[in-house]
Amino acid sequence: MSTFGDYFRVTTYGESHCRSVGCIVDGCPPGMALSEGDIQPQMTRRRPGQSALTTPRDEKDRVEIQSGTECGFTLGTPIALIVHNEDQRPKDYGGSTMDLYPRPSHADFTYLEKYGVKASSGGGRSSARETIGRVAAGAIAEKYLKLAHNIEIVAFVSSVGKEELFPPSPEYPSYSTNSNFLRLIGTITREKVDEFAPVRCPDTEASKRMTKAIEAFRDKKDSIGGTVMCVIRNVPAGLGEPCFDKLEAKLGHAMMSIPATKGFEIGSGFGGCEVPGSVHNDPFIVTPEVGGISDKKRLTAKTNNSGGIQGGISNGADIYFRIAFKPPATIGQAQTTTKYDFEEGVLEAKGRHDPCVVPRAVPIVEAMSALVIMDALLAQKSREASRSLLPPLPKSLPIRPETTN
Amino acid sequence: MSTFGDYFRVTTYGESHCRSVGCIVDGCPPGMALSEGDIQPQMTRRRPGQSALTTPRDEKDRVEIQSGTECGFTLGTPIALIVHNEDQRPKDYGGSTMDLYPRPSHADFTYLEKYGVKASSGGGRSSARETIGRVAAGAIAEKYLKLAHNIEIVAFVSSVGKEELFPPSPEYPSYSTNSNFLRLIGTITREKVDEFAPVRCPDTEASKRMTKAIEAFRDKKDSIGGTVMCVIRNVPAGLGEPCFDKLEAKLGHAMMSIPATKGFEIGSGFGGCEVPGSVHNDPFIVTPEVGGISDKKRLTAKTNNSGGIQGGISNGADIYFRIAFKPPATIGQAQTTTKYDFEEGVLEAKGRHDPCVVPRAVPIVEAMSALVIMDALLAQKSREASRSLLPPLPKSLPIRPETTN
Amino acid sequence: MSTFGDYFRVTTYGESHCRSVGCIVDGCPPGMALSEGDIQPQMTRRRPGQSALTTPRDEKDRVEIQSGTECGFTLGTPIALIVHNEDQRPKDYGGSTMDLYPRPSHADFTYLEKYGVKASSGGGRSSARETIGRVAAGAIAEKYLKLAHNIEIVAFVSSVGKEELFPPSPEYPSYSTNSNFLRLIGTITREKVDEFAPVRCPDTEASKRMTKAIEAFRDKKDSIGGTVMCVIRNVPAGLGEPCFDKLEAKLGHAMMSIPATKGFEIGSGFGGCEVPGSVHNDPFIVTPEVGGISDKKRLTAKTNNSGGIQGGISNGADIYFRIAFKPPATIGQAQTTTKYDFEEGVLEAKGRHDPCVVPRAVPIVEAMSALVIMDALLAQKSREASRSLLPPLPKSLPIRPETTN
Amino acid sequence: MSTFGDYFRVTTYGESHCRSVGCIVDGCPPGMALSEGDIQPQMTRRRPGQSALTTPRDEKDRVEIQSGTECGFTLGTPIALIVHNEDQRPKDYGGSTMDLYPRPSHADFTYLEKYGVKASSGGGRSSARETIGRVAAGAIAEKYLKLAHNIEIVAFVSSVGKEELFPPSPEYPSYSTNSNFLRLIGTITREKVDEFAPVRCPDTEASKRMTKAIEAFRDKKDSIGGTVMCVIRNVPAGLGEPCFDKLEAKLGHAMMSIPATKGFEIGSGFGGCEVPGSVHNDPFIVTPEVGGISDKKRLTAKTNNSGGIQGGISNGADIYFRIAFKPPATIGQAQTTTKYDFEEGVLEAKGRHDPCVVPRAVPIVEAMSALVIMDALLAQKSREASRSLLPPLPKSLPIRPETTN
Repeated sequence: MSTFGDYFRVTTYGESHCRSVGCIVDGCPPGMALSEGDIQPQMTRRRPGQSALTTPRDEKDRVEIQSGTECGFTLGTPIALIVHNEDQRPKDYGGSTMDLYPRPSHADFTYLEKYGVKASSGGGRSSARETIGRVAAGAIAEKYLKLAHNIEIVAFVSSVGKEELFPPSPEYPSYSTNSNFLRLIGTITREKVDEFAPVRCPDTEASKRMTKAIEAFRDKKDSIGGTVMCVIRNVPAGLGEPCFDKLEAKLGHAMMSIPATKGFEIGSGFGGCEVPGSVHNDPFIVTPEVGGISDKKRLTAKTNNSGGIQGGISNGADIYFRIAFKPPATIGQAQTTTKYDFEEGVLEAKGRHDPCVVPRAVPIVEAMSALVIMDALLAQKSREASRSLLPPLPKSLPIRPETTN
Repeated sequence: MSTFGDYFRVTTYGESHCRSVGCIVDGCPPGMALSEGDIQPQMTRRRPGQSALTTPRDEKDRVEIQSGTECGFTLGTPIALIVHNEDQRPKDYGGSTMDLYPRPSHADFTYLEKYGVKASSGGGRSSARETIGRVAAGAIAEKYLKLAHNIEIVAFVSSVGKEELFPPSPEYPSYSTNSNFLRLIGTITREKVDEFAPVRCPDTEASKRMTKAIEAFRDKKDSIGGTVMCVIRNVPAGLGEPCFDKLEAKLGHAMMSIPATKGFEIGSGFGGCEVPGSVHNDPFIVTPEVGGISDKKRLTAKTNNSGGIQGGISNGADIYFRIAFKPPATIGQAQTTTKYDFEEGVLEAKGRHDPCVVPRAVPIVEAMSALVIMDALLAQKSREASRSLLPPLPKSLPIRPETTN
Repeated sequence: MSTFGDYFRVTTYGESHCRSVGCIVDGCPPGMALSEGDIQPQMTRRRPGQSALTTPRDEKDRVEIQSGTECGFTLGTPIALIVHNEDQRPKDYGGSTMDLYPRPSHADFTYLEKYGVKASSGGGRSSARETIGRVAAGAIAEKYLKLAHNIEIVAFVSSVGKEELFPPSPEYPSYSTNSNFLRLIGTITREKVDEFAPVRCPDTEASKRMTKAIEAFRDKKDSIGGTVMCVIRNVPAGLGEPCFDKLEAKLGHAMMSIPATKGFEIGSGFGGCEVPGSVHNDPFIVTPEVGGISDKKRLTAKTNNSGGIQGGISNGADIYFRIAFKPPATIGQAQTTTKYDFEEGVLEAKGRHDPCVVPRAVPIVEAMSALVIMDALLAQKSREASRSLLPPLPKSLPIRPETTN
Repeated sequence: MSTFGDYFRVTTYGESHCRSVGCIVDGCPPGMALSEGDIQPQMTRRRPGQSALTTPRDEKDRVEIQSGTECGFTLGTPIALIVHNEDQRPKDYGGSTMDLYPRPSHADFTYLEKYGVKASSGGGRSSARETIGRVAAGAIAEKYLKLAHNIEIVAFVSSVGKEELFPPSPEYPSYSTNSNFLRLIGTITREKVDEFAPVRCPDTEASKRMTKAIEAFRDKKDSIGGTVMCVIRNVPAGLGEPCFDKLEAKLGHAMMSIPATKGFEIGSGFGGCEVPGSVHNDPFIVTPEVGGISDKKRLTAKTNNSGGIQGGISNGADIYFRIAFKPPATIGQAQTTTKYDFEEGVLEAKGRHDPCVVPRAVPIVEAMSALVIMDALLAQKSREASRSLLPPLPKSLPIRPETTN
């Protein structure tokens, strides 16, 4: 369905060529300052047409808050967000390529199989414009997470084709063991990422390699995929709802719901299968929080192969994960395929197409991350608040030591 | 929470040392033959103690149907399934290692952070016994899927540590491009997989390599991870509920909710990021179904980089995906870590431990796959049935061509 | 929350003075003809200002479909519906009555308690404008129900204050035993009901009594409540999801979620408590369907104290129920009450107010009825379709006799 | 479906003649003392066979906690509760009355229509034994509500047939205007109610009238319905989730899901339709809380026609509502009806039957009330806790005055 979340519920709507796209956010905490200005920046970061490397269409995508706020503060009631579609005319029927062919690796065929009818042009609901509602809703969640817990979410491009930000080396076979990587995710900001626009890979040398790769595929009228890495900092320990709604399961769900994704890994990920438990285990150490919310001593993990989540629950360390995006299905090259009427033919897409969507996926990944964390946070708030009214546990039980609470 | 699915809803319960573990399955189609005999085989496959390579504990795990059937047929009402825990005694408190230490990369620390209290011994709710309810429920879903659509779900071990079933080669850099792999998943059966017990990797040579690897880690009192590959055959086109409940998103959610998972990839997966769109796109061809449910001509994908899903919706091709499992956190080796009281110490686990859980994960992966497909199927059945009562669409609309319906 | 339904999911948004009000409908069957013209009539029937008896404000309330349709047919994707608020200016702060007083029996006090902040003027989310989204969504459900099953939903006013459409008499102590009533609900149409606008009680004499009552309360600057009766005809047997989502439970939920409702009763209702089981039981008879969908013989209930639902499941007979609406809380009379600052004072509402909202509640009751039936229908469609793929049951089981299927 | 609640989720299972009945409770706050002794009393109060006025069957109904607690405290994980069925043998088939007839006003007919198959004997899932899981789960919720907020829930019989606890009088035409009634619900306890067993109407004279009425119907082999009144005290202001999950809507849903219910009314209820707004409105007064949780001054309602809920949200006053129960459908008298094979016949039930279920409904009503309040409380806890981390609102906004917080 088109609803995500149980406590912070986002319902999106909209096709590529209807009147508008948007969403309703239900469950936002009341009394939070909120205006379009909090949402627009991520909308703009998501927008295509920001450089020669991405698709040149310029849609502006101005978001309008319809409800749920007054005098610039949230009321706790549903917040409807709308972005008007500038091009609302579904294409004329008859004879066009799209009426004859299901485009290879597009959703044309499966939408017809599922619904028995499909949007006449563009991707309909499978269009990238569907993600506008996600990004708008995510911006609201982010605002809360920042205000309430100083939570920071930053995504960036970690590879384009075979060009990796951190190519595997004998010393650092994987991300989770690479101290340069761990240092990077501990400090990276969106501002820094955007300095490396349009590729959004925060490394000068890697960025150049990636740009070159994209240009090469563009020039061949081809396309290429890549990966996005995301880090979430300052997440309090205790988020995630086992056994089915473990935090990594919800993150996996969220990320794999983004168009064109093919894979998700958290912490050590697939690379973690190859190292022994004696290396993979994250031992505990004591970390005095410096200048943080609390100056109490706390246990924390010395290494972070877990990616900030253990047993499906956040442990307070940085949460990081990587998402695989396939190459865009629309390419300028001619493709031999088959029409709806079972006749073979050659399909050739016109116009200019985005050879690599990975840079534009960055704010979408951030938005979906915010929705997952927000939902898990509200669930845990309910538990903590309800627990706090109960009589204290007897000392004999294996309770949370006072010192860490 | 502990409920999975919207239409075929499974709610599990149980810790490692409580009276019983099990689940309630709500939404099973009525009138299906069902007895314990349909469920027990997967329970037994999940059971530890099947060989020297897995943990020697023998729990039997006999499942009992409590409700929802009569005279051997489902009533359409909730089906409760129970497996008694033979060892129900939570450990005595005081002085034991587990009271002093949060075990590294276990859920001890995060459960305490989340709930403020935790089970005294074993993993509590984070124990592998939690998966019993999943496997039992999955067996019911599988029975329906087989009866109604001849859907087949088979998982197997595709790697242990660095030992791969299909090591990447210049000719076949990835699974999705490997014709041997594609042939294997087209025909592999559970019987075949179990011939390769205890490793469950259906290849004599690879199986030997993996066994050796596991033994080596066992002898070092260490542990190792690996990957499980799963294929789902005969899934009708049209399953999956965009935009948030895309079929791969639900599969990703399901798989990442299994304990010890670190990654999920579908079809071409992470490898798919590295190939151009012109190679990655799956062109359509016409496939006359031979001896199938229908002998009508249909469109199908010529290659299967999509992994059987496009735009979040099944396209009728084999669905396949891979899951990364980290090495078990419990190892016999001494580990330097920190106690709840912030004092550093050396933790040494006693007894024998499972050096590699990947073979046992096989039936769990199959069960979760069944739950996802069953849920998506019931959603789509509702849509198709409701649509079938509407007047036919005008011919001018881009409807599903008659010939493919 | 602001979402209703599991299969046909409606999420509404909007306050009295924000930019727009509306909803997203997710789960509408694809391929159904749908335009604003299908929705507007009920919007207009809901609209205030239709006569001197109701509030004179004229808001027009033009609905706009934003998404989910193309070329006049539903795509199966979310349908967003918007109605612009003409008066979007929240009132200035300071010194106004509403800032000083929580209005008696309004939601001012409880919204502040719940959210810690509230809309500055109007009812905010508790305003009657909130029901616009419900009515719009209901119209879509109604269209489907009519097309697919010829389901008809008609509500009308059954009492205003003490003026009853069918006053209890020795012969007919209650609705369910009154043959005139049963005849009326078997044939009543919306057109007929609207002939009796503005009171919407389909009886000339009763309508006059009610009009007089309303006028009397209006002249006293007071208000009065009443009841609305609703009938749903041609509902197929089998709808409703026990044990918690019995059809009457969902109807009760739906109706009690309408602002100003105080009670709900189905079939014999509260009156049914007073008659013995020997009278209350509905014996079965055989009804040949005349000119209906099927000419097969079927069992049906001879009497209808059950109100068309038994064991929480529709039995094919007319479903009818009654809803109690309290008198509007806003009255012109002076009321002694207490300010937020704990000081007693006299509150006097300015302007003209609706002395009786019951007639306007009619389309809202119909809309909520449609949402409940639609949701239950989609749930049952899924069950029936999934069951139909299973092998036939053995003859020895107590199955549904062939003749009634 | 068989799940109730979003935050405190209860899933029940079980038919009349299967192995066991019970439930899983997911979302219980961790760290609460809980044992079978907290649950059994309500199980026993629900149990039939407590006197000559109710059915003589004695089933004992011992509840067993399967999971979710350790050392007598909740872990925050799912709590499974089981009650074994002592009579597990479904009746033999062939020739029995129940195989031939759908019993009038029972669920036999509709279950067959819905599921295409039904339990062979007893009521299957529509049996009163289904309510065991509800009562067990409700007892857990009650324990929390009492510990955390001193919330008290007491239900009692308010009428049997035409015998009313408070017959309408010119002075007191309805409950909400009757000062004796309001006094009663302010102090009534379960102990007091049970002093009036088996009728459970806390008034000596009314109790006698009701007993006599039940005996008269029993002697005629007939049955009779009645009403149950329920009060919930000490509910904090702010519970209920508009617009669809208003507190009265959830209460209505919960109550109408109990077998044999025909109506629900809250506060002034149907009687409230007949009084003018000037009388119905509940003015605010200042109430110093005496000996309560807080000694702060608060606003409260002077009268309570609202029944403790305004705008769908609790206002801190007593919540009270009334539920109508129809007469039991199983009667000893002969009934003329029609068989499954369309032949008319005379159905005569054997054995002794419960002539009036209303007294046994008392603990079920209490349990469902507890589930609704618990769920609403956890929702609001999440909101309040999340709001508390935001910066304070500017003074210019219409915020909740400090003095009442």
